[in-house]
Amino acid sequence: MIRSDIPSSLESKVSNVHPAWLPAEAFRAIGSRPSLVHGAGMLIDTVRTEVGQAAARYGGSTAAGGEDAGAGPVDLVLALTGAPERPNAEAAAVLAQFHDDAPGAAIGDEGFLLGRRNGVTVVLADHPAGLLYGLFQLVRLGEAAFGPEPERAVEHHRPAVARRMVDHWDNVDVHPVMGQVERGYSGGSIFWRDGGPLGDLARVRAYARLLAACGVNAVSVNNVNVHGTAVRLLTDRLGDVAAIADELRRYGIRVHLSVNFASPVVLGALPTADPLDPEVRAWWSDAAARVYRAIPDFGGFVVKADSEGQPGPFSYGRTHADGADMLGEALLPFGGTVHWRAFVYNHQQDWRDRSTDRARAAFDHFAPLDGEFGANVVLQVKHGPMDFQPREPLSPVIAGLPRTRLAVEFQATQEYTGQQRHVCYLGPMWSEVLGFRPWGADGATVADRAAGGDLVAVSNVGDDPYWTGHPLAQANLYAFGRLAWDPRADPIRLLDEWIDLTFARTATADPGPLRDTLHALMDGSWRSYERCTAPLGVGFMVRPGHHYGPDVDGYEYTPWGTYHFADHDGIGVDRTRATGTGFTGQYPAPWSDVYESLADCPDELLLFFHHVPYSHALKSGRSVIQHIYDTHFTGAAEAAEARSRWERLPAEGVVDPALHARVLERLTEQVRSAEEWRDQVNTYFFRKSGVPDARGRTIF
Amino acid sequence: MIRSDIPSSLESKVSNVHPAWLPAEAFRAIGSRPSLVHGAGMLIDTVRTEVGQAAARYGGSTAAGGEDAGAGPVDLVLALTGAPERPNAEAAAVLAQFHDDAPGAAIGDEGFLLGRRNGVTVVLADHPAGLLYGLFQLVRLGEAAFGPEPERAVEHHRPAVARRMVDHWDNVDVHPVMGQVERGYSGGSIFWRDGGPLGDLARVRAYARLLAACGVNAVSVNNVNVHGTAVRLLTDRLGDVAAIADELRRYGIRVHLSVNFASPVVLGALPTADPLDPEVRAWWSDAAARVYRAIPDFGGFVVKADSEGQPGPFSYGRTHADGADMLGEALLPFGGTVHWRAFVYNHQQDWRDRSTDRARAAFDHFAPLDGEFGANVVLQVKHGPMDFQPREPLSPVIAGLPRTRLAVEFQATQEYTGQQRHVCYLGPMWSEVLGFRPWGADGATVADRAAGGDLVAVSNVGDDPYWTGHPLAQANLYAFGRLAWDPRADPIRLLDEWIDLTFARTATADPGPLRDTLHALMDGSWRSYERCTAPLGVGFMVRPGHHYGPDVDGYEYTPWGTYHFADHDGIGVDRTRATGTGFTGQYPAPWSDVYESLADCPDELLLFFHHVPYSHALKSGRSVIQHIYDTHFTGAAEAAEARSRWERLPAEGVVDPALHARVLERLTEQVRSAEEWRDQVNTYFFRKSGVPDARGRTIF
Repeated sequence: MIRSDIPSSLESKVSNVHPAWLPAEAFRAIGSRPSLVHGAGMLIDTVRTEVGQAAARYGGSTAAGGEDAGAGPVDLVLALTGAPERPNAEAAAVLAQFHDDAPGAAIGDEGFLLGRRNGVTVVLADHPAGLLYGLFQLVRLGEAAFGPEPERAVEHHRPAVARRMVDHWDNVDVHPVMGQVERGYSGGSIFWRDGGPLGDLARVRAYARLLAACGVNAVSVNNVNVHGTAVRLLTDRLGDVAAIADELRRYGIRVHLSVNFASPVVLGALPTADPLDPEVRAWWSDAAARVYRAIPDFGGFVVKADSEGQPGPFSYGRTHADGADMLGEALLPFGGTVHWRAFVYNHQQDWRDRSTDRARAAFDHFAPLDGEFGANVVLQVKHGPMDFQPREPLSPVIAGLPRTRLAVEFQATQEYTGQQRHVCYLGPMWSEVLGFRPWGADGATVADRAAGGDLVAVSNVGDDPYWTGHPLAQANLYAFGRLAWDPRADPIRLLDEWIDLTFARTATADPGPLRDTLHALMDGSWRSYERCTAPLGVGFMVRPGHHYGPDVDGYEYTPWGTYHFADHDGIGVDRTRATGTGFTGQYPAPWSDVYESLADCPDELLLFFHHVPYSHALKSGRSVIQHIYDTHFTGAAEAAEARSRWERLPAEGVVDPALHARVLERLTEQVRSAEEWRDQVNTYFFRKSGVPDARGRTIF
Repeated sequence: MIRSDIPSSLESKVSNVHPAWLPAEAFRAIGSRPSLVHGAGMLIDTVRTEVGQAAARYGGSTAAGGEDAGAGPVDLVLALTGAPERPNAEAAAVLAQFHDDAPGAAIGDEGFLLGRRNGVTVVLADHPAGLLYGLFQLVRLGEAAFGPEPERAVEHHRPAVARRMVDHWDNVDVHPVMGQVERGYSGGSIFWRDGGPLGDLARVRAYARLLAACGVNAVSVNNVNVHGTAVRLLTDRLGDVAAIADELRRYGIRVHLSVNFASPVVLGALPTADPLDPEVRAWWSDAAARVYRAIPDFGGFVVKADSEGQPGPFSYGRTHADGADMLGEALLPFGGTVHWRAFVYNHQQDWRDRSTDRARAAFDHFAPLDGEFGANVVLQVKHGPMDFQPREPLSPVIAGLPRTRLAVEFQATQEYTGQQRHVCYLGPMWSEVLGFRPWGADGATVADRAAGGDLVAVSNVGDDPYWTGHPLAQANLYAFGRLAWDPRADPIRLLDEWIDLTFARTATADPGPLRDTLHALMDGSWRSYERCTAPLGVGFMVRPGHHYGPDVDGYEYTPWGTYHFADHDGIGVDRTRATGTGFTGQYPAPWSDVYESLADCPDELLLFFHHVPYSHALKSGRSVIQHIYDTHFTGAAEAAEARSRWERLPAEGVVDPALHARVLERLTEQVRSAEEWRDQVNTYFFRKSGVPDARGRTIF
């Protein structure tokens, strides 16, 4: 069922779509040289086509290996170690050095070697995917891959995390409230439209190419809330999924599918979806077999069960392990994986009840099940215990289930971070999470923990001409992929890398001012956004439903479990063991004690863990109330400064006028919104506390 | 174009629709007697058919007048004074007495005389509509119309207000947010569905019959926000309106149409809708002529212009008088009327700006135009200055434009009063408004002011089997019609009248407990609802958008101009001339001074006009904060008591089990909601003020 025709061009031919981090110019260094590509197979064909396209554009040449190999001097060799073609001498030298440096080491499934010998740049891989990723490493290096020195020490690149996944919350049918893409801020879906496939497979291919270029190798193509037509993607609409898989496969990306736990009832007309019922298990096994006949490299199922109204094993008195393992068993013969989401909590909480704590829910549900999940079940957990707020502590689930495979979920779509109307570069936040050490300074990092599992991001991509609504939001998708490949990468270096690929190489004038401006706008934008919004980790002071813009009490008296408990004396949620909900006890030492202690708890999470008076002195020396005022004045001023910088950019030769206008329009909205956050939050707390701003600034 | 076929039956034959205040039983007294109907014409045919149907059911008889007249003894005569048939002797005596008592007086266009002579009950009217209304007066009287005494003094009934109108905010196309009926809580529209006519003309006729029975004589059939297909009701979809008009006409009801001010541009392809442009004026004249060719008794246009995003004359630098008069001129040759809504305000207000006051807006816009509106232009103004809150002062527009015809608009659909999930009998509120004397104790009432204009209610009716969602919400539509006919009627007597017609006459068991229960549930339900919601007239503590349930700060930082300004010290909006927005100055004396004075301002409107500390002592002796706590505890307790009373009703013979269940389900929701109001409002103000409840009750 896998399509075997080779496309003549793999570059984005999609009209009116921004090339993002793969402008043609990014291939100039490769395309202007003679090169060899050794090896055979679909992904090697992809590499060969990419190199050939670049050569056609920039005057280089490429040979296919085999009889051509060594026919003339080449500057670049991309080769599979096991390819039958006669190895190029420089490639052999690179491989030899690698084996000398790391005796017995494998290059790895997706890894590659990159070196330079005798003026020839060499990329070697054991497997085709490695060669593809090596090609994109060359793209990033540009001319630097080709000298000026004739030698370059061999580098061994391989991903820290085996599965680097993007989840689309794209609906097949337009949802009456959520639209075509749930929490999507980039137009429609690139996969679906009005109940069927969008049918723009060229766009899907262009997307796959971008994902591969930043290291992503898995995509889930539909929303985890699976309704209507989407339920049937598993059965009679499977062809729609297979068509997408055919495009993604060319770039080493496997397709995953969100499924409805009640599918045996909805689709199979069974009386139950009980995971221990033999007929139900047989139904899922058959379903899995059918999927693999259509998509032999299918990745697996993503499941949101017993959460926010979705069906799940609780309906049948079964555990989440029962449910997940049933699906795992169905997929196991075919090498598929279950991503079982840990986002399970009571969304009909009584706001009067201060003992129920949504932050506790995932750990309370899942920690007792540790060890019960099958080997191909991955528990997918949001990185924080709540829901992608600008500041949260780490989810204790990540430290709490040592015998369970984990996928740590990030949110590239900016639901709570400005909805792609605001610049908010999330790389630093994700980097902080990945580098966090849940077991203390001598323990492993979150990235170490995820290495045996997956990293996942909720997509921020749509059918928008810039892919992501805000053109600068492309950086979040790029940074996610790159951090998933190498969690220790400096997110600011990745930002500069993205700026270079996306903007600087195509500039016809001096790109310096643009680099500086983009860097200045983006490097601190997450912390600036944090300053604009809910203070000190308390979260959720947003408009209910759409989550854009401030509403301090918006969720305070709702069933959603997201409260700040501000009164005339103070604010914050007491989650201590001593006097609160006991959530701090879900962490291992030392964090269980650090967070428990009012003295030790980091300022930025203070109100997540403690209820304190407005007069409470922070480590910064300021009172809580003054911190609220100061940060909101600062946040708004920073937004204004960002717009001002963008306006000062040179008018010509640096950035496309349409993109300049789009960014300016969004920065203007960001300024307006930051002022709204400033004034609403400050006014709310001034009215409530009666404490004036120490600096006498305007509070309404 | 008027259909002339006479339906064989005018009773509601609509399946599964509740008969409301016209159960067959209500016609027993009429139907069980021999009667005469004198006169000819469509409405007389309607009367004759009604009487004939009743006679067929209950064993009476009816003669058509003419040769039959006096053929035998009759108990009832309904006759036009000008009918060519030989007058019945008793009818002649009734007419003679009327002329003796009120020399030179006319019975009036819609008036009737009702008397009894020699054991014969007589209804006389100058015009057919009067006979129709006389028939329904007989229905209300039941057996009391027929004795036991043989004589009954002549009563002269005629409506205080000439046009008694119901406006439907029904959309032709389903609106993505507002649905088929904007602010509708009774299912779909009885007129429209999914972009076209619903086509259930039997239902429309049943509706017309109910409206006539309570005195309504005009209906606007589409939402004042006129979009999409609805715009074209004026032109190529006019037939859909004519079909409705054909049904309503049989019960003396004229059809009105909401039109889009930009119609000449949207429909006519003109480059402008400037009301002073000759082509635009010609376009409207042609449009009006076309409408009257299709609907000769068409009532006129309803227009919401320059309001909440609707187009209007401001776009062309013209006044609202320019706009309204242009339409008035187009309708004048045909006897049509323009209802021009005064609901014009800045809905993109900056919440930081305390000088802008939405309450001022209608007066500020329209008072300067007094005297400029044509004779067939009616300025339609909501009864309060804001938007149908449970408690508002009177709109100063009602006193402020002495030379302008006014329609006072009420809202039967319970947007802010429980959305027909809650019992909230609005008769007492409307009665209070109608009896209010804007110029002081010696001046005219609002009803007097409206007598030269119209009373209008926004409909609460939909395709729900009980018409109004909550079965008891029928009483609001009934009371509106009856109060529009006679604004001095006691709303509690009207409530009992409605209970009698709707429930008591059809009871097979003793209706006493049901009467008592319904009376107890409903008579104080508006004030109870007021206790549950925003205190002391401040208003708008509701969930944004849908307006159901509490959200104290929901509108506090929005552009809608609806604020309470609560801080840690106090609450309320300073609308005084001395220190506030000056709104009090829009009233004539004495109210301009009463409202200005903190000492004189009535408690129930205190926070509408003044910002006071929580400790401020009300006339009741309680502090504001204690009043907030007390009323919210009381309101919730009253809701619980109402449900409890309903549950204690005898199980059989009194009320249909399905209706009993529907009411019980809604009372249960009302209890839940009242508790939510109690706890959210009390908690909000306790947190903000820090003042504990003097009685130590639970506040969360």
